[in-house]
Amino acid sequence: MARSPVIGASVPRIEDRPLVRGRGRFVGDINFPRQLHMRIVRSPIAHGRLLGVDAAAARAMPGVVAIWTGADLEGVSPIDFREGPNEKLAPFRQPILARDTVRYVGEPVAAVFAEDAYLAEDAAETVTLDIEELPPILAADEAPGSFSPGHSTEATLCTQDYGDIADAFARAHAVVELDLKVGRHSGVPMETRGAVGRYDAARDALELHGAAKVPHKNREFIARMLGRPQVGIHCFEPHVGGGFGIRGELYPEDMLVLLAALRLDRPVKWIEDRREHLMAANHSRQQRHRIRAAVDVEGHLLGIENEFFHDQGAYVRTHGTRVADSTCGLLPGPYRLPAYRALGHFRLTNKTPAATYRSPARYETNFVRERLMDAIAVRLGLPPLEVRRRNLISSDEMPFARPLAALGEHVVYDSGDYAGLLDKSLAAFGWEEHCAGLAARRARGEKVGAAVAMFVEKSGLGPTDGVRVVVDVSGSVEVITGGASVGQGFETIIAQICAEELGVDYAQIRVTHGRTDRIEFGVGAHASRASVMTGNATAIAAAKVRAKAIDMAAELMQAPPDRLDIVAGCVVRTDQPDGPSIDLATVAKALVPAAKTRGGREPGLSADGWFDTAHQTYPYGLQIASVKVDEETGAIAIERLLIAYDIGRAINPMLVRGQIVGGFAQGLGGAIYEEFSYDERGEPLSVTFADYLIPTAAETPAIEVLLTEDAPSPCNPLGIKGAGEAGISAVGAVIASAVDQALGMDGLVVQLPLTPQRLKAAIERHRGITTR
Amino acid sequence: MARSPVIGASVPRIEDRPLVRGRGRFVGDINFPRQLHMRIVRSPIAHGRLLGVDAAAARAMPGVVAIWTGADLEGVSPIDFREGPNEKLAPFRQPILARDTVRYVGEPVAAVFAEDAYLAEDAAETVTLDIEELPPILAADEAPGSFSPGHSTEATLCTQDYGDIADAFARAHAVVELDLKVGRHSGVPMETRGAVGRYDAARDALELHGAAKVPHKNREFIARMLGRPQVGIHCFEPHVGGGFGIRGELYPEDMLVLLAALRLDRPVKWIEDRREHLMAANHSRQQRHRIRAAVDVEGHLLGIENEFFHDQGAYVRTHGTRVADSTCGLLPGPYRLPAYRALGHFRLTNKTPAATYRSPARYETNFVRERLMDAIAVRLGLPPLEVRRRNLISSDEMPFARPLAALGEHVVYDSGDYAGLLDKSLAAFGWEEHCAGLAARRARGEKVGAAVAMFVEKSGLGPTDGVRVVVDVSGSVEVITGGASVGQGFETIIAQICAEELGVDYAQIRVTHGRTDRIEFGVGAHASRASVMTGNATAIAAAKVRAKAIDMAAELMQAPPDRLDIVAGCVVRTDQPDGPSIDLATVAKALVPAAKTRGGREPGLSADGWFDTAHQTYPYGLQIASVKVDEETGAIAIERLLIAYDIGRAINPMLVRGQIVGGFAQGLGGAIYEEFSYDERGEPLSVTFADYLIPTAAETPAIEVLLTEDAPSPCNPLGIKGAGEAGISAVGAVIASAVDQALGMDGLVVQLPLTPQRLKAAIERHRGITTR
Repeated sequence: MARSPVIGASVPRIEDRPLVRGRGRFVGDINFPRQLHMRIVRSPIAHGRLLGVDAAAARAMPGVVAIWTGADLEGVSPIDFREGPNEKLAPFRQPILARDTVRYVGEPVAAVFAEDAYLAEDAAETVTLDIEELPPILAADEAPGSFSPGHSTEATLCTQDYGDIADAFARAHAVVELDLKVGRHSGVPMETRGAVGRYDAARDALELHGAAKVPHKNREFIARMLGRPQVGIHCFEPHVGGGFGIRGELYPEDMLVLLAALRLDRPVKWIEDRREHLMAANHSRQQRHRIRAAVDVEGHLLGIENEFFHDQGAYVRTHGTRVADSTCGLLPGPYRLPAYRALGHFRLTNKTPAATYRSPARYETNFVRERLMDAIAVRLGLPPLEVRRRNLISSDEMPFARPLAALGEHVVYDSGDYAGLLDKSLAAFGWEEHCAGLAARRARGEKVGAAVAMFVEKSGLGPTDGVRVVVDVSGSVEVITGGASVGQGFETIIAQICAEELGVDYAQIRVTHGRTDRIEFGVGAHASRASVMTGNATAIAAAKVRAKAIDMAAELMQAPPDRLDIVAGCVVRTDQPDGPSIDLATVAKALVPAAKTRGGREPGLSADGWFDTAHQTYPYGLQIASVKVDEETGAIAIERLLIAYDIGRAINPMLVRGQIVGGFAQGLGGAIYEEFSYDERGEPLSVTFADYLIPTAAETPAIEVLLTEDAPSPCNPLGIKGAGEAGISAVGAVIASAVDQALGMDGLVVQLPLTPQRLKAAIERHRGITTR
Repeated sequence: MARSPVIGASVPRIEDRPLVRGRGRFVGDINFPRQLHMRIVRSPIAHGRLLGVDAAAARAMPGVVAIWTGADLEGVSPIDFREGPNEKLAPFRQPILARDTVRYVGEPVAAVFAEDAYLAEDAAETVTLDIEELPPILAADEAPGSFSPGHSTEATLCTQDYGDIADAFARAHAVVELDLKVGRHSGVPMETRGAVGRYDAARDALELHGAAKVPHKNREFIARMLGRPQVGIHCFEPHVGGGFGIRGELYPEDMLVLLAALRLDRPVKWIEDRREHLMAANHSRQQRHRIRAAVDVEGHLLGIENEFFHDQGAYVRTHGTRVADSTCGLLPGPYRLPAYRALGHFRLTNKTPAATYRSPARYETNFVRERLMDAIAVRLGLPPLEVRRRNLISSDEMPFARPLAALGEHVVYDSGDYAGLLDKSLAAFGWEEHCAGLAARRARGEKVGAAVAMFVEKSGLGPTDGVRVVVDVSGSVEVITGGASVGQGFETIIAQICAEELGVDYAQIRVTHGRTDRIEFGVGAHASRASVMTGNATAIAAAKVRAKAIDMAAELMQAPPDRLDIVAGCVVRTDQPDGPSIDLATVAKALVPAAKTRGGREPGLSADGWFDTAHQTYPYGLQIASVKVDEETGAIAIERLLIAYDIGRAINPMLVRGQIVGGFAQGLGGAIYEEFSYDERGEPLSVTFADYLIPTAAETPAIEVLLTEDAPSPCNPLGIKGAGEAGISAVGAVIASAVDQALGMDGLVVQLPLTPQRLKAAIERHRGITTR
């Protein structure tokens, strides 16, 4: 028997088994006897002094067990920063329930605990808030104000720079300057948030059910905030109906169910409704960039100045300034850039707090940078692709270090052939012929155009991940990991890697994740890190288990270890095709603690594997969009869309494609449809799906995916790079360019989303027609 | 700061915190939404052909979800043997539900699953069984019969022997022969059994809540019986209201809740009632011994022939022949014995199946052997203590190997000074003065007497145990073990050992046990093994954690490691009393995976510790009883009772005393009160506490405990021996001897329990008076 490779095969997802049979277990499915239900009373006012909360009517309702206001949480820390204390930003943390002021519509002011969810909601509606309204601060790009004495709404500045930026502009052949805006939008998972808190006094164990994304990290900071031993707190991840970076962060509601479970001594459940989700879960993306580039006569970048205004909303949440920091560090993308200066104004406003959403800082900076490249092309009269080619970092410059930082690391692109991928993509798209066809159509009056946007992604955030691989006495394999599954196919990927290394059927492997009681450390699912970090740790652990199995089997079979392999779960002799074999169950039995056969070996056919890395990996790609614009309605039809992506090595190409296509659909939302808008009082206008438009299958075009493996990562043994954010990353960028092209209006698009109204207004403005 | 010893201190129990506050969580407290309740329909007939089960009326009751009979379990294995297949005994395993025959009153015949427990019970009562009654086999000591063609009720013979037994008897100065009976009784925990089965389809995880004693072992054989991956099954131990060896074995009811959880797709709960417990949980002890000893002129033992009849009841349960095997291997006790032959008839009867109960085979053999020693004394006209002294193995013969086996191991007494303990005990008791006092009272007509019974216990069954010790970033310590807590103070003992090694406060340590999802292997709580095996593994793991902490702290503190100690959870300099110190939280933070400080160290301030041992340890002791007998009523009053026990090294003397005193109370039950009796149809007569008498505080005398540490075990670094069975082991033996002495009737007591009726009858028989 020979082994056939599992890594690289588009095998079906193992996590689909319960899901397709309706046996998924989401947080809404989790119930405990005697549980209470929580409903949050939220501020209807964007900014005001909270003078009083009248909950008398609610308290009088039978079945209402408790109502808490901020006063009940005296001494409980505001939601802390994940990476530990930050003195400068500490004053801007969100209290779990508002105390003296309210700062956004949707801010939790009171919590109602009742016997059922309907009663809790009814009771919450009787709670009246006495709020003295204050003028809201809604723009992050005007002069900063103050929410409390001594604390400007410019909470901090984020800066990064290198090179002689003054010199770059002094010797520029040309300077191109743009003012660009990315709209406020965010992840809208099919499943809203939820949490069930439970305290088991018998074991002094506090449990959070409904965890996602970063269960171990959240456990750590729940322990810190509650002053309880970390080993007495456990987070459990059920099925997760979409994460996208926003779900699984620690929110006030999580802390409330935990505190209530402790104080009321009953399990407490909270399920978010859609309206709440749209005003209470993290927003993202809203930035205004005033950016300018200095170029030489041939269009080579000499320097970029990137001043931007980050609209953080009302509070600084768990991530601190990560999006703004990354905006500084990642803007240059695939291009050589001798000098750079980024200055980010990290500003608070009276809106929902913001944090990371799939491809944070890249979606924004790809739009901004690629708009800049287009503008340079226009300014120098060069084709847009030519300007890009001249500036692309070449493969022989790899690894390419830039004196910038992102996610706490020095930016070092590990490998890549950006120009090579551009060539392959244009060939695959049939770029020349396609453009010729568009020219002909434009000549006939059709508003069609195509464009290319390039991007560098980041993935595989380290520095470390560890898993445990166990083969039990029934021969079954379990991989226990502190990674998390937010729907991306994590279990399948990990099973494939384990299967490949260990020589077993991937479909029989059990991948246990998101449970802090099963493994001491874990990093969860974020920053497109899981495949790289957890994957490589799995390979290391599986290789150790394999070595142990072969060592034990060699003794049992009286065979030389170097003549043994594991195929389909059996240790076989490589030199005797029909020779003896023993299955892993037998090997595992020979290694149980009491087995005499195990000799001096540590008990168990199991091993921990740790993977350490000094750097993230940087996959890269590009998008080619061909669009048709309806000038009358402002509607944009995407006629063709190709996403090329070099992943280094794909574990499961089908899942990579799934990530890319799904990501594109979300990117399309931010590019054309989705926006959290507010009126002048700070009232959110997008709190239903009638107002917050997300693209459906009807709006999402067929996507052509060109997946390449030209640049395996040298940073990890498997050579893999992440795929989670590839599809979304450059959608705003490429659609903006293509619309410019379609309309023949250079530099038309300066703001996302490109809603029909906004596009129509832009067209009219461009034509010099004044609109009302 | 200096460290004060924790091992050896009688500190309060950490497990009492939830218990004394009413926050214990027993299996009865465990509930899941949508759970069903199971009630077992049991055979009212001791032996019969099962012709039919009519459940039509029950099925028609609203809220009854399912009713299963044996036919519904086609293909499901009978309850298997814990140690793996045993071809010879396989035919005698108990089916989960009876198929064609019933073999004892209480045998599960059908299972009713309903929406609540009351309904389930009501429905079960409407189920009618069509049973053709067969003559029951109730005596194990008459000619064997057959339950099925080709299978004698003598399921097997258990034999062990060494030396030239024929020669011993041939050259004997005298031969003493006895016919002795130990009554059928068992553990009667305050909490009856219970089990909750639950299947989580989302994770394909089958759970058994309510596990006790051996959760890991049970998981292994549940997996085998159900043909499911072991990693997909987890057992969870809640609080346990008494174990005593009988609770936590895998019973038909456990398998039924699991199967029902899978098939009915709802959690299924079963709680045993007291009547069920007394007829369905394992019985124990019932043996008849025909024993004879060959002695020389001075009373030295030359040989013992030990033929016995073990009444196993209707089926062979999880333990197989362990009690009978141990009866062979352990009978010789503390005495030198040149030749020995044991022949055990392992017989089935139509009674409740039997297995191990606290001090299995020792309670029985101590009674038998000590009765034999008394008879030898009488025969040779020697004082009973003198005969014992002449035969005691001396301390310079230690370690003392005997060519016998018990619990799968060669019997090697590791250390002991039996005569020394006898001397100490007699001195502590004031034996001479006391006996003089008794003589004076006897002279006045009082029926008072005192006796000594000696015993060797066994404890610390290996071969291996492992624990994990974790210090988290909050500085909290958790010991994760596959041991189990059945009320014995396990958590406290383990915390004390960990505290001593690690230098932290024992009261702050969390001991996690009895959860198969927290640690891969575990051996549970049986055979008085936990302190020895889990304790030593804990010491090893804690020492590793200590070493890691000091290594890391040395780097952080820039101090030489050999000048560092851990005191009260802080690493301090031993050479600088007021010098710098850092707490373990800081050290743990320096060792998290992402910490640069950890350098090349494995992540985590944690370690596994494995303890391997080649042999059990053999603690030893003796009991001195002084009793007064009321000839008219047959009542026995215990006037003084001393238990001397050498434990090698006591971790917590208070808990050892607790074990000893509690054990004595149970032993007293088997000696005087408790008996499962049957009428001639095999109908059990002891199915309520009105008929099955357990001693209360009123019947239990004050116990004098002499705890010595003269013979630490050389088998483990801590030198400890077990304590779980010390108090119960020789109660039958010592009371029998003391009653003989009180009445001045040598050899009067030949059967336990010594109920008033039985004692009165024996007295009358001894006097030659014929009773009806």
